[in-house]
Amino acid sequence: MIFYGGDYNPEQWDEAVWDEDVRLMQQAGVTMVSVGIFAWAKLEPREGEFDFGWLDRVLDKLHAGGIRLDLATATASPPPWLTKAYPEVLPVTEDGTVLQVGSRQQYCPSSPILRSLTERLVSKIAERYGNHPGLQMWHINNEYGCHVSHCYCAVSADAFRSWLRAKHGSIDALNRAWGTGFWSQGYSDFDEIFPPSAAPTFRNPGQLLDFDRFSSDALLDCFRAEAAILRAAAPNVPITTNFMGAFKGADYWKWAREIDIVSDDSYPDPADPNSPAFAAMSRDLMRSLGNGKPWLLMEQAPSAVNWRERNAPKAPGQMRAWSMQVVARGADGILFFQWRQSVAGAEKFHSGMLPHAGTDSRVWREVEALGAELKTLAPVAGAKVEARTGIVFDWQSWWSLEQDATPAHLSYVQGVFAWYEALWHLGVPVDFVEAGSDLTTYGVVIAPNLFAASTATLAGLDSFVRGGGHLLVGYQSGITDEDARTTQGGLPRRTPADARHPHRGVRTTAEHRPHRPQHTAPTRGDHWCVDG
Amino acid sequence: MIFYGGDYNPEQWDEAVWDEDVRLMQQAGVTMVSVGIFAWAKLEPREGEFDFGWLDRVLDKLHAGGIRLDLATATASPPPWLTKAYPEVLPVTEDGTVLQVGSRQQYCPSSPILRSLTERLVSKIAERYGNHPGLQMWHINNEYGCHVSHCYCAVSADAFRSWLRAKHGSIDALNRAWGTGFWSQGYSDFDEIFPPSAAPTFRNPGQLLDFDRFSSDALLDCFRAEAAILRAAAPNVPITTNFMGAFKGADYWKWAREIDIVSDDSYPDPADPNSPAFAAMSRDLMRSLGNGKPWLLMEQAPSAVNWRERNAPKAPGQMRAWSMQVVARGADGILFFQWRQSVAGAEKFHSGMLPHAGTDSRVWREVEALGAELKTLAPVAGAKVEARTGIVFDWQSWWSLEQDATPAHLSYVQGVFAWYEALWHLGVPVDFVEAGSDLTTYGVVIAPNLFAASTATLAGLDSFVRGGGHLLVGYQSGITDEDARTTQGGLPRRTPADARHPHRGVRTTAEHRPHRPQHTAPTRGDHWCVDG
Amino acid sequence: MIFYGGDYNPEQWDEAVWDEDVRLMQQAGVTMVSVGIFAWAKLEPREGEFDFGWLDRVLDKLHAGGIRLDLATATASPPPWLTKAYPEVLPVTEDGTVLQVGSRQQYCPSSPILRSLTERLVSKIAERYGNHPGLQMWHINNEYGCHVSHCYCAVSADAFRSWLRAKHGSIDALNRAWGTGFWSQGYSDFDEIFPPSAAPTFRNPGQLLDFDRFSSDALLDCFRAEAAILRAAAPNVPITTNFMGAFKGADYWKWAREIDIVSDDSYPDPADPNSPAFAAMSRDLMRSLGNGKPWLLMEQAPSAVNWRERNAPKAPGQMRAWSMQVVARGADGILFFQWRQSVAGAEKFHSGMLPHAGTDSRVWREVEALGAELKTLAPVAGAKVEARTGIVFDWQSWWSLEQDATPAHLSYVQGVFAWYEALWHLGVPVDFVEAGSDLTTYGVVIAPNLFAASTATLAGLDSFVRGGGHLLVGYQSGITDEDARTTQGGLPRRTPADARHPHRGVRTTAEHRPHRPQHTAPTRGDHWCVDG
Repeated sequence: MIFYGGDYNPEQWDEAVWDEDVRLMQQAGVTMVSVGIFAWAKLEPREGEFDFGWLDRVLDKLHAGGIRLDLATATASPPPWLTKAYPEVLPVTEDGTVLQVGSRQQYCPSSPILRSLTERLVSKIAERYGNHPGLQMWHINNEYGCHVSHCYCAVSADAFRSWLRAKHGSIDALNRAWGTGFWSQGYSDFDEIFPPSAAPTFRNPGQLLDFDRFSSDALLDCFRAEAAILRAAAPNVPITTNFMGAFKGADYWKWAREIDIVSDDSYPDPADPNSPAFAAMSRDLMRSLGNGKPWLLMEQAPSAVNWRERNAPKAPGQMRAWSMQVVARGADGILFFQWRQSVAGAEKFHSGMLPHAGTDSRVWREVEALGAELKTLAPVAGAKVEARTGIVFDWQSWWSLEQDATPAHLSYVQGVFAWYEALWHLGVPVDFVEAGSDLTTYGVVIAPNLFAASTATLAGLDSFVRGGGHLLVGYQSGITDEDARTTQGGLPRRTPADARHPHRGVRTTAEHRPHRPQHTAPTRGDHWCVDG
Repeated sequence: MIFYGGDYNPEQWDEAVWDEDVRLMQQAGVTMVSVGIFAWAKLEPREGEFDFGWLDRVLDKLHAGGIRLDLATATASPPPWLTKAYPEVLPVTEDGTVLQVGSRQQYCPSSPILRSLTERLVSKIAERYGNHPGLQMWHINNEYGCHVSHCYCAVSADAFRSWLRAKHGSIDALNRAWGTGFWSQGYSDFDEIFPPSAAPTFRNPGQLLDFDRFSSDALLDCFRAEAAILRAAAPNVPITTNFMGAFKGADYWKWAREIDIVSDDSYPDPADPNSPAFAAMSRDLMRSLGNGKPWLLMEQAPSAVNWRERNAPKAPGQMRAWSMQVVARGADGILFFQWRQSVAGAEKFHSGMLPHAGTDSRVWREVEALGAELKTLAPVAGAKVEARTGIVFDWQSWWSLEQDATPAHLSYVQGVFAWYEALWHLGVPVDFVEAGSDLTTYGVVIAPNLFAASTATLAGLDSFVRGGGHLLVGYQSGITDEDARTTQGGLPRRTPADARHPHRGVRTTAEHRPHRPQHTAPTRGDHWCVDG
Repeated sequence: MIFYGGDYNPEQWDEAVWDEDVRLMQQAGVTMVSVGIFAWAKLEPREGEFDFGWLDRVLDKLHAGGIRLDLATATASPPPWLTKAYPEVLPVTEDGTVLQVGSRQQYCPSSPILRSLTERLVSKIAERYGNHPGLQMWHINNEYGCHVSHCYCAVSADAFRSWLRAKHGSIDALNRAWGTGFWSQGYSDFDEIFPPSAAPTFRNPGQLLDFDRFSSDALLDCFRAEAAILRAAAPNVPITTNFMGAFKGADYWKWAREIDIVSDDSYPDPADPNSPAFAAMSRDLMRSLGNGKPWLLMEQAPSAVNWRERNAPKAPGQMRAWSMQVVARGADGILFFQWRQSVAGAEKFHSGMLPHAGTDSRVWREVEALGAELKTLAPVAGAKVEARTGIVFDWQSWWSLEQDATPAHLSYVQGVFAWYEALWHLGVPVDFVEAGSDLTTYGVVIAPNLFAASTATLAGLDSFVRGGGHLLVGYQSGITDEDARTTQGGLPRRTPADARHPHRGVRTTAEHRPHRPQHTAPTRGDHWCVDG
């Protein structure tokens, strides 16, 4: 079965409409909904006072209607009472601005108070619903880091120091890794280190890179704390959290190892002619992150979104076409944000499966039609995509390439996309691969902008070539190691005449072409190739 | 008589020049000046130490010279001693920046300390000058909200909560109005609410809209406090405060009901070919706000201003032409900022009636000529403009349309101007009308971007059409009610075939045309029309 | 001898490479290096714990290798322990953001704690190395004000008040100079004054101008404190601090009087065709600042920098050509930032004399070749450039012209450059001259954008013309006096027919031409000329 459905936020509505919701879901062919993502304030309206009655009722209605449950842990947005009582939970930006309640995700990922209140809520949900017969999967939090991927508050500063202690072991090792000999930055103690807040000029690249890693890990720790509770309470229920395509704030390779089902939120611009190719890249990235695990499209828009400068609706048939692309690229579910379009709130102008206009509308008719069509595609669920071409996608390089004070301001994702798009037009199936991972199943591997490459990664690429693989290395690759320290003695290269540095790929330094790199056609067993 | 004159700030000058000022005023035909707008620091140089001697002398000189007095309450800019002693008076921006002394208007409108110091000053002025024989009118404060229309400090937060309590009555009602079921924003108590400060992402639209209303009301309360004192002391002296054309920060419909004479500050760009049409709109808005009350042009520039990127002087004759436009659109006075151009300070490069160059200058000669010409126009003072066409101008829709997270980023004023400009070119006189007001005197009513329309407003429009009026409704109208909650079940429409929803206007949703809407020619008794 | 070398930061490297450094310096013809600029953290790794052993060793190696020492005072960037222990040292921006450790220059120039820790460090350096046989000159701090030229913290506010007291004497005098009668800004006491932090709207021009002066002086006081220690310890060793061409934050005329050798850091964009002319202007400014003192190019890049949006490398021969320009314009030294390109840190992508690629590289070969060529140019060291044309370069006018709320937003440096460039193309040698300085040696003096001109300056220009000189005065000149108070009674002019105002230059007011002013050819003894 290919799951079909969307976010269902019944707490926005009077209970009176819930029966209609279930009836219309059935009519549309909905088979699964994500419930409770933003329900914390309704489940715990005052600190320690829990009210699960309404959720019991809505879940039972859904189950009775044959709708499976992707049940959320409701931790995505702390309720107002929480940040009022504990303002130290509020996140702080690079320049010291405290972000206030009134939107969503207003929390510091490293906050122990937030952690403890989160764990209490999740424990109650796990205990109450872990054996619910409708439960298909757990949905932890929501779009981790979407708005607050980095927090610069004092609590985060302490957590960063702990993370650095664990990683570097000694302050001497950190000083060496960060190159603090430059600009008089030598630390005598971890206590002297701060997050890379606003500073007079360019900040230390090693500090920035470690802070990107720490920030991804701080969010991942939030995930882990919730997952541990859910796994203990319901060992057989799979767990997901929704990714956001190529999202800079979280190293999804590391995350994907800890979840059971990869899921993605994807909002290509209906008015952008590049969207089909760019969306395909996102699908293939999700499939690749799972590395054989199932993946779902957790969120897409039935029509327009509400957060662009101008929000084009989807043209007739566009939503269907893009949904089919998702299925073709291996997804086992197509879900939307959200079931019933909001009457109020910040996303009231974001389209819903059931729009403001009701069922007498094109959007609803397309939603119904897709539900019916997906039923006929049940046989493809679980089918695998086979690719012989891999593209290295590397968060370390992304973070490094896009720092300030680099040779040029480039976009990592655009750099990867330039390669992906060419292959997409040729119809070549592509996997994305983690730097340093096993490449033996590939005939061709492309490494665009592999800016930060560890010795192990370079050795792996070398070994791939020695084993007969074709490797294409893009511009601005191998520029630094994993500590943001620059490669010395010339850049990685390997040619027939110069095999002294077997761990180094060929590159050009004279210029970089961020868009549409030219590349030579790979020939089996050939030496490493180069763009341009 | 058509009043003629300008802001007169004698506190910038040695007393030695005051006699020359009066003499040159007489020479230029000046009949009224606005005195004391920024005189607080000079009237109360230290807390509680008042010095009115200099003002006594200058007012007497003016009166002796036959110049009428638009006497200010001097509260527009608190003196440095005040914010030094009470730094909590300083306003705070959305991101927490405290705005410091050194320019003007550095106060939180909700500050009780500011209020009490203001009231003491105004009481003394009212008492001292309320029976001055030269007193023509009171000028309260200056350009309320021009630089600080919204304050996010803790005092403002408390005042906002009180305002919300009074408006919504219960926290449940507020939760319903704002749709806090979305994104886990349910409040359990008013104390949990904050101004919509910087937040991780889009803020609650209902909260934003109420904060716009509260902010306009907070300024209006400042006005009311001063007006009450003045009315008690001098019941027969009319009161004004200078508006700023179509100014977003204050709902002037609400304000205009509380003042006796509408006055406007207007600075169209001399280099912008749209300025004549745009300025005409501002004149008609002022006239309409008064709803029969007299109105004045309180400020215009004799030539260049000093706050644009490039500040063009007015071409020969341009100041006269624009002044005549003002008279033609009903104003009973033409005044300038300011009488004598400053030698120092932030507006020293803003032109004055008496420029740096002195009387041997084109600006001075044009000022003299206009004074003479206006004398000949005395008979038109008080004449009324009659219009059979009304355009709805609605601050609720302005605030709502220009929020983030809407279908598209549009300019409310440009949307209104597109309609106005077409009529202006056709020579059709236009009134602006308040949403929900009596429309019976109009043949045609236009509602551009009436984004937020209450049921009562829609009923009024329907009734207007039922009574034989022609109604043209622009794109992005009727999208929400007055609580920013979206219209359900399809948008407002009314056609011969579909009269089931009598309170709804026709509109298109496929696209919007912010510039130059096409509109069908209205036919008497016809059904509601639509642009595009 | 023309000195040749660069910044040498051995603290970035293991001692193992120091011998190679000296050997390669000798190979490249290096004769002087700047050592220790960012060494504070290494010299004083914990408060009060000093470690000079490593510096002893490296200086001895250099001296033994025949490399002269431009020894830095190491105060350019306080170590992390310092701002951790004394966070009040951190600078604060206009909007209240505290700038954190992690880059460089994170200190308030007025901080007494910083001053005292600085003085202790400099005393130890002066005492230890004042008699070092390799010592050629002292290098105080580095690029004063480059990132933090203005600090708005409470300590700076106090220092600003003291500076104002000393300058104005009484609060009445300050109120008069600043024109605080406008906008109710009258101060009753110096304690009520704050730095011109973020405010509701345009700030007082006099306050802004005095804050620019104070900020330059606050940095100069830092310099003076260090210089006094060095002069006491080693009276015969000359002192420099590196300037940054036409740098707005510091009035270098005032600074240059206190240093023995002018030195400049200069980074023209290799990809900008205007760079040769613009760089020439910077060379001539440095030469002129010295007024006969020797000057050096203290820093240029061997090839690319790392802080532009796109950082072009220098083309083959470009570095040599630009270096020769420097020699031709009077410099007695050519130095680079930096000797060995960093492996890590914020400038690792800034080119070095010894690049990442090592000696088998074009950059290294060009560095070697230049070193050899400069040896052959030893005879020109100390030669003087003679110019009969002077261009007034005036920081007071720069600060004033570029304030907000002026007639138009203009660039002072571009205004000066327009004149300079025309003369450069004609091959006319040019001195820059200070406003108010002796002009008797010039045949022609040009005053572009002399916006703020004191009576003494105007009198000097008048006297120059009366003595037979030709004076060209650009647009937007003589607009204010030195207190930012506007000129009254018409602008400075002097024509045969109107000699009543002998201290005033002719100007046009109708328009300004920031680029490429037309100017009439000067004729000896002619009256003052005008552009346009």
